[in-house]
Amino acid sequence: MAALMVLPALVDAAAGNPDWSVFATTAALTLFVGVSLVIANRGPRFDMQVREAFLLTALAWIVAALAGALPIAFSGLGLSFTDAYFESMSGITTTGSTVIVGLDSAPPGILLWRSLLQMLGGIGFMVLAVAVLPFLKVGGMQLFRMEFSDKSEKVLPRAAQVASSIAAIYFALIAIDATLLWLAGMTGFEAVCHAMTTLATGGFSTSDQSIGHFDSVTIEAITTIFMLSGAMPFVLYLEFIRGRPLRLAEDSQVRGFLGLYAGAVIVLALWQWLGGGEPLGKAIRETSFTVASIMTTTGYATTDYQIWGAFATFTILCLTVVGGCTGATAGGIKIYRLEVLYLTVKAQIRRMIQPHGLFEPHYAGKPLPEAVVNSVLGFFFLYAMTFAALSLALGAMGLDFLTAISGVATAMGNVGPGLGPVIGPEGNFSSVPDGAKWLLSLGMLLGRLELSTVMVLLLPAFWRG
Amino acid sequence: MAALMVLPALVDAAAGNPDWSVFATTAALTLFVGVSLVIANRGPRFDMQVREAFLLTALAWIVAALAGALPIAFSGLGLSFTDAYFESMSGITTTGSTVIVGLDSAPPGILLWRSLLQMLGGIGFMVLAVAVLPFLKVGGMQLFRMEFSDKSEKVLPRAAQVASSIAAIYFALIAIDATLLWLAGMTGFEAVCHAMTTLATGGFSTSDQSIGHFDSVTIEAITTIFMLSGAMPFVLYLEFIRGRPLRLAEDSQVRGFLGLYAGAVIVLALWQWLGGGEPLGKAIRETSFTVASIMTTTGYATTDYQIWGAFATFTILCLTVVGGCTGATAGGIKIYRLEVLYLTVKAQIRRMIQPHGLFEPHYAGKPLPEAVVNSVLGFFFLYAMTFAALSLALGAMGLDFLTAISGVATAMGNVGPGLGPVIGPEGNFSSVPDGAKWLLSLGMLLGRLELSTVMVLLLPAFWRG
Repeated sequence: MAALMVLPALVDAAAGNPDWSVFATTAALTLFVGVSLVIANRGPRFDMQVREAFLLTALAWIVAALAGALPIAFSGLGLSFTDAYFESMSGITTTGSTVIVGLDSAPPGILLWRSLLQMLGGIGFMVLAVAVLPFLKVGGMQLFRMEFSDKSEKVLPRAAQVASSIAAIYFALIAIDATLLWLAGMTGFEAVCHAMTTLATGGFSTSDQSIGHFDSVTIEAITTIFMLSGAMPFVLYLEFIRGRPLRLAEDSQVRGFLGLYAGAVIVLALWQWLGGGEPLGKAIRETSFTVASIMTTTGYATTDYQIWGAFATFTILCLTVVGGCTGATAGGIKIYRLEVLYLTVKAQIRRMIQPHGLFEPHYAGKPLPEAVVNSVLGFFFLYAMTFAALSLALGAMGLDFLTAISGVATAMGNVGPGLGPVIGPEGNFSSVPDGAKWLLSLGMLLGRLELSTVMVLLLPAFWRG
Repeated sequence: MAALMVLPALVDAAAGNPDWSVFATTAALTLFVGVSLVIANRGPRFDMQVREAFLLTALAWIVAALAGALPIAFSGLGLSFTDAYFESMSGITTTGSTVIVGLDSAPPGILLWRSLLQMLGGIGFMVLAVAVLPFLKVGGMQLFRMEFSDKSEKVLPRAAQVASSIAAIYFALIAIDATLLWLAGMTGFEAVCHAMTTLATGGFSTSDQSIGHFDSVTIEAITTIFMLSGAMPFVLYLEFIRGRPLRLAEDSQVRGFLGLYAGAVIVLALWQWLGGGEPLGKAIRETSFTVASIMTTTGYATTDYQIWGAFATFTILCLTVVGGCTGATAGGIKIYRLEVLYLTVKAQIRRMIQPHGLFEPHYAGKPLPEAVVNSVLGFFFLYAMTFAALSLALGAMGLDFLTAISGVATAMGNVGPGLGPVIGPEGNFSSVPDGAKWLLSLGMLLGRLELSTVMVLLLPAFWRG
């Protein structure tokens, strides 16, 4: 992170903005603390156990958000520490909710830093999802450990290798997206910033009006395609490159995700066209972008979709919760969990009718292990309880119903905008009370780390023995 | 039902209200159809299979609501058939949402009929929950079949006997409640009507202001106690009478239910007293009644609790969903399901930390069978999906966010009032569009029959072979 901070320092120095010294100082501080920790903890090889892995994962995100908040807190924007931590957590978890008003006139260093935080958060999460979470059996992720080892392609034997290949694809896609955005009319700086936050499905923009600022169909189309790319399993892009393009088309998550996307676009576009009286072209343009932005948990906006009426707003709230595929940068409950739940409940109901029939749910051609089913169902319950608890707490802080519910949904789903006049696509989180900002930061962390990674730390048993 | 219709006919005749002929006619019609069906289907003994049991259960409620709607539709109130069916379904499912404005001046026949529908719905549901649902393995109800047979008390060997004992207790409690309410100042008619809808945890009242009309602490206290009684497992009252009063105090559901009740009352009363500046006595009086009314899914109101602020409103919305104990007249998700979910998730998280530890969730001293856990988790998923689908559909019909969400919550939980200016405790459902009334009726049916009893009928496999 210290190395990354050098980039905004250079950009601000080139632009003649005094914030360059802030970035330089915090880079030095971060480097000092980091190196100190490395030196202090040198010693014999240490075998990480499950408990250490949980603690490390949660701490990594909390500390990264702290380091990321330093330059924001000390920058010329004059934000409080609460605001800076919220913004940084929103970046590192690729959420994209912002408390900064006046992005268009903000110095380039801070804009770049926000994008870099999301870029880092995106790749960090993918490595976590491929290399760590499946082994911790978090929310049914063990499903992807199996798939992984069952394939047993000798060319990619280790998680570390897969992780570095995924990183290479991630940066290649960012480069392609940036080039296309630049060709479509963005400045080079804008293109780079947006490409990073697009592939990270983060959603930080360089303008208060988000992508709507550019008012360009081309930019929206490019962004839609790359947002969708950021929400699909990156391991499959590896297969694609290795000459197995069909793996991508055959994947159950990809099919489910794109099917849901197409369905939601069609329904909302028809609703807008037939119900709302909008021209069909405009309806398709707006809904295809908005649905992609919400489902991929990016959170860019081109229009205030709240004027589409209650049905559209509800649909968008539901999609906020769904999220993308696992093994990608997207957040939310995730497609495979909904698939597992659907298959399980279907088998259960059929068993109710024919008690002696054999209905074993299958996923991706293999029987679903009971442990995965339980783990996914448990995730779902934990999600609902956390959702209710955070909503209640936000209500106690004086937020209205819609702001509280949609704020929790957007934080836990790592999406970005909420609903209502305050935190909706036209608003931002600056006017939310400080306590609510901390709760929403917690929601982002819980959502990003798939809940139980953080929840285990709350168990007394975790700290015993 | 034809026999029950004679009662309001007599009451209206005594009061000189022309509706007596409506009740007499519909009684004759209902009797004719019923007897015709009995005669037409006479034949050799018929062994009911699982599929027939599902179909019969769902049809029984749908047809009972239809028969119940007839006198309401043809009465002097001038309601549409949609309104009459909504009111009748709300009665037979013991929900208590109403479309009738001007209850205080309504003829006594229709008031009695609404109470009788809830009384019938209450005992019908308890018999279903004790004698049918556990055998259909609906939403983990098989847990109570086991408990039932494991105890193997020779004195009560058969479900039918338990059902009739429960009915005796139910009517005895109604009689005691009616007597106390009458002594506390209600007229005899009001006391009988309210006692029936209290023990049924239904919530229909003889006044537009519900229990608030009487403005009596004594009536509120009596009603609170009997609402709570209606939401606790009636089988345990049997044990109580048979000299095992501790069974009631030891029961995990009863403890969970009363614990949650006490916790919610304390939190909301403190919130009202310290936060809202209300006198402590008034805060305790209002919250203890309101929380009992919502948690037991009765739905009486004495005050517009929406003025307590967002936190209180949220808490009440959450409690709307929770519901009471199973084996009682209360609706909602039910306490035992939340207990099963909590125990399962706790065991899962502990297993994540110590992968080789043995964490088997226990319920009521016995290990929880995997099938029950899955069934409960499946119920929870089905509940969330149904909730989302119905909310979306209500949104498409033009209802605002709060009305739609709380409308679905109150219908599926069989509670009664929703939130917001339209369907809140001060309002009613008369101004809701017709389509929404049908959807809410469906929600009440789904909630009352524990979802999967109705859902199985939608599977093509149900109708095959």
